Amino acid sequence: MPGLTIGDDLPNLEVETTNGKMKLHDYVGDSYTILFSHPGDFTPVCTTELGMMAAYANKFAERGVKLLGLSCDDVHSHKEWIKDIEAYNKGHKVTYPIIADLKRELIKQLNMVDPEETDSSGHKLPSRALHIVGPDKKIRLSFLYPATTGRNMDEVVRVVDSLQKAAKHKIATPANWKPGEPVVISPNVSTEQAKEMFPQGFDTANLPSGKSYLRFTNV
Amino acid sequence: MPGLTIGDDLPNLEVETTNGKMKLHDYVGDSYTILFSHPGDFTPVCTTELGMMAAYANKFAERGVKLLGLSCDDVHSHKEWIKDIEAYNKGHKVTYPIIADLKRELIKQLNMVDPEETDSSGHKLPSRALHIVGPDKKIRLSFLYPATTGRNMDEVVRVVDSLQKAAKHKIATPANWKPGEPVVISPNVSTEQAKEMFPQGFDTANLPSGKSYLRFTNV
Repeated sequence: MPGLTIGDDLPNLEVETTNGKMKLHDYVGDSYTILFSHPGDFTPVCTTELGMMAAYANKFAERGVKLLGLSCDDVHSHKEWIKDIEAYNKGHKVTYPIIADLKRELIKQLNMVDPEETDSSGHKLPSRALHIVGPDKKIRLSFLYPATTGRNMDEVVRVVDSLQKAAKHKIATPANWKPGEPVVISPNVSTEQAKEMFPQGFDTANLPSGKSYLRFTNV
Repeated sequence: MPGLTIGDDLPNLEVETTNGKMKLHDYVGDSYTILFSHPGDFTPVCTTELGMMAAYANKFAERGVKLLGLSCDDVHSHKEWIKDIEAYNKGHKVTYPIIADLKRELIKQLNMVDPEETDSSGHKLPSRALHIVGPDKKIRLSFLYPATTGRNMDEVVRVVDSLQKAAKHKIATPANWKPGEPVVISPNVSTEQAKEMFPQGFDTANLPSGKSYLRFTNV
């Protein structure tokens, strides 16, 4: 199935949300935005996920990241369901907008369809897709999870920290990296450049190939 | 960009690997398989990731999960680079095969292209894509990460556990779920059915809507 993938531009679609009509690019503005779909309102995993997003809203706000939910239910359903979400996830208000994609046009264009999940009328439902959109309106990173696997918001925070750090410095984050741990210097930075760019110093791993591409530093 | 997404069939391509030629479906067999790409050999994040995969190989083997790497470097390069990976990740041998996609045909068909990353000759490079393929040869779950963000193997293990549990029971795993924590009963299971299916019992959340869709149990 064709669809949006990493590096693609987020289409500037007009969407109906719990906070009114908007165009996607206007909402993103100059911020990183997390656009995430859920299969349906009044279903179990989704209730835990949208509540968890509300509980993590401060963490995302601190990082300048906006949230935007999406399913194929209507705005009235979303608003009624939010009462359940807030009751279950005590003290956490759902203030981010949730898109109502009644025509199922958006989920196709945004690569958020789960072909194995349909509603009682046989219509396609969204997967648990999550795209991190950059301030340049490009898809920077995506999770495509099925209906049975709730997402892990700690991993979402981790990758946001990685993306933002890599946008600021010539670095990348290694496997299993967590904030505060050393990062690696980008391979297109020469040793000479690295000395200038990273006055705090860096450690180069001693490898059998004799190549010096694995350089750790702290930023 | 068109590409493989959740629910699609893994194309049964013939591939050249560090362990010889194979057809993708033959390799998957009746197992879950983690097919993961990396931008290039002899680069920093990739060295930490493929080493981490080797370190986690036992965890995946315990779950009956096979590993399969991929980049656009040739088999000779992969084999030389494995010496660096094993030296850096002391004690962990890279025994899983790594595909050599010299023609860059696979990365297109497998939705593993990062349009922003090119090699010194201007050829496209793979992103850090990771597809979990089911025993039915379908894509069950995908991560699409950019070159600058190393994957988190703990999250990969977590979602494998979720997928395998959901394949066995009529359940799904809530947001931020970890093995051992309660799961939710699928919405298409009636209360009567749930009583039979889950003799260990379940707790139904009391919600403002009065609907009883949020039911927790342990499996």
